[in-house]
Amino acid sequence: MRIVTDPLALRDAISPETTVGFVPTMGYLHEGHLSLVEAAKQENDLVVMSIFVNPTQFGPNEDLDRYPRDFDRDEALAREAGVDILFYPDTTTMYPLDMARVTVRTGADVLCGASRPGHFDGVLTVVSKLFNIVRPTRAYFGLKDAQQVALIEGYVHDYFVPVEIRRCPIIREASGLAKSSRNVYLSESERIEAAEINKALTEAETGLQTGVAVTAVKARLIERLDAIPNSTIDYVEIVDYPTLTEAHDTSQELLIAAAVQFERARLIDNVIWKRG
Amino acid sequence: MRIVTDPLALRDAISPETTVGFVPTMGYLHEGHLSLVEAAKQENDLVVMSIFVNPTQFGPNEDLDRYPRDFDRDEALAREAGVDILFYPDTTTMYPLDMARVTVRTGADVLCGASRPGHFDGVLTVVSKLFNIVRPTRAYFGLKDAQQVALIEGYVHDYFVPVEIRRCPIIREASGLAKSSRNVYLSESERIEAAEINKALTEAETGLQTGVAVTAVKARLIERLDAIPNSTIDYVEIVDYPTLTEAHDTSQELLIAAAVQFERARLIDNVIWKRG
Repeated sequence: MRIVTDPLALRDAISPETTVGFVPTMGYLHEGHLSLVEAAKQENDLVVMSIFVNPTQFGPNEDLDRYPRDFDRDEALAREAGVDILFYPDTTTMYPLDMARVTVRTGADVLCGASRPGHFDGVLTVVSKLFNIVRPTRAYFGLKDAQQVALIEGYVHDYFVPVEIRRCPIIREASGLAKSSRNVYLSESERIEAAEINKALTEAETGLQTGVAVTAVKARLIERLDAIPNSTIDYVEIVDYPTLTEAHDTSQELLIAAAVQFERARLIDNVIWKRG
Repeated sequence: MRIVTDPLALRDAISPETTVGFVPTMGYLHEGHLSLVEAAKQENDLVVMSIFVNPTQFGPNEDLDRYPRDFDRDEALAREAGVDILFYPDTTTMYPLDMARVTVRTGADVLCGASRPGHFDGVLTVVSKLFNIVRPTRAYFGLKDAQQVALIEGYVHDYFVPVEIRRCPIIREASGLAKSSRNVYLSESERIEAAEINKALTEAETGLQTGVAVTAVKARLIERLDAIPNSTIDYVEIVDYPTLTEAHDTSQELLIAAAVQFERARLIDNVIWKRG
């Protein structure tokens, strides 16, 4: 595995005929990231991972300096997973003049973005730079953050970026609970109850599939999530994918997403549904 | 000459080994545009021109519908000039979802941009899309709108866009007066007096070259432009290029720019100076 910090050196390291699978990360790698590498390895000649803690996607109340970092561990994990090139630039490299940013017009102020103004502007800004540097054939994103994937797909479509976006499935416990570093904050009983989130989302998916109206499906979903003891719903949404605007018909892809607050952990989960 | 309206068809029409010179325009072609085509022909295998009246760079008080259009004339001129592919998309094609825009953080609210808020956001938005579609080797811009060229160069640098930006010289009358479609609104005496703008800019350039301080050069420039009868200065600026922030040293490139209002025409002109 080669470690590259300079964008032009990275470009020079990749021949134009090579198919490149790209996994952008902020480091502190976990099982989810490694599953993206695995997917990238299966369909590309070369796998490039980036590790860059992007300052512009942190809000004024979010502590950039406290974001967890462990490059040595990440390097070992990436190497073991079969990454070919690890791109590890610094902030001055990624923001030389910082004269312009990408700003999201629709789809940023809903779901998780509602409580993180400007977050997805920062995400799209850095992702568009990384795409220009790496020029990947395919880029891999986990569906755990479905809003991020949606906005990136929207951007790629709107800006004619020559890359294929690969959505990778959420990794789950046997119970269906979406894996998350926050799950350690769940009590034993909460961990059992939290599995209800995915069951409720799956029921909603089946509802749409069998022709139940979006409003009725959403009402039932709220009802089920509301019934989870010692927790409160943060949001429940059924929206068009990738615009994340209110779902008005069921011929498009729809995102069914929920965030539920337990005592010490806020859990998110989602399902993307398309008439099958 | 081929006329293409679909971005993917355009992409398919260009082989990756071909060097591509790109001339983006809003149509209603004049001598300036054709000089860009000429420059592009000299150093590329293929010349692509786009004609797209970009709605997002028009302000709420600027009339998009009244922008002059004459496709048949443009087509004939482009063909005659030696354009190989004319890209002529419609607005829905260029803005399919319009989920995200590029917004300028520095350099947009000075010079001509001061009176056109949002204008350069629209310019960078459409130019970044066009670059992704055409993927040119080199792109050609006239220095008449130096602020536009500066912001595009800044964007290309900040976003690692793999394109070479070519600045093309302002086309001038024998008197030095910068050519402009607005010159027809000058009276005979104004046309003579307006030639003073370029002379004053050239003197400023010489001043910098001989070591005169930026503030003194600017004061003298204001003095000379102020002396042009029956006109008022709109702005005079000496700024860093391409950030367009206040010039603090003379080791970088500097843009010396002025706008002067005559009775029926507002004229702009500029010089980019670098220690020779």
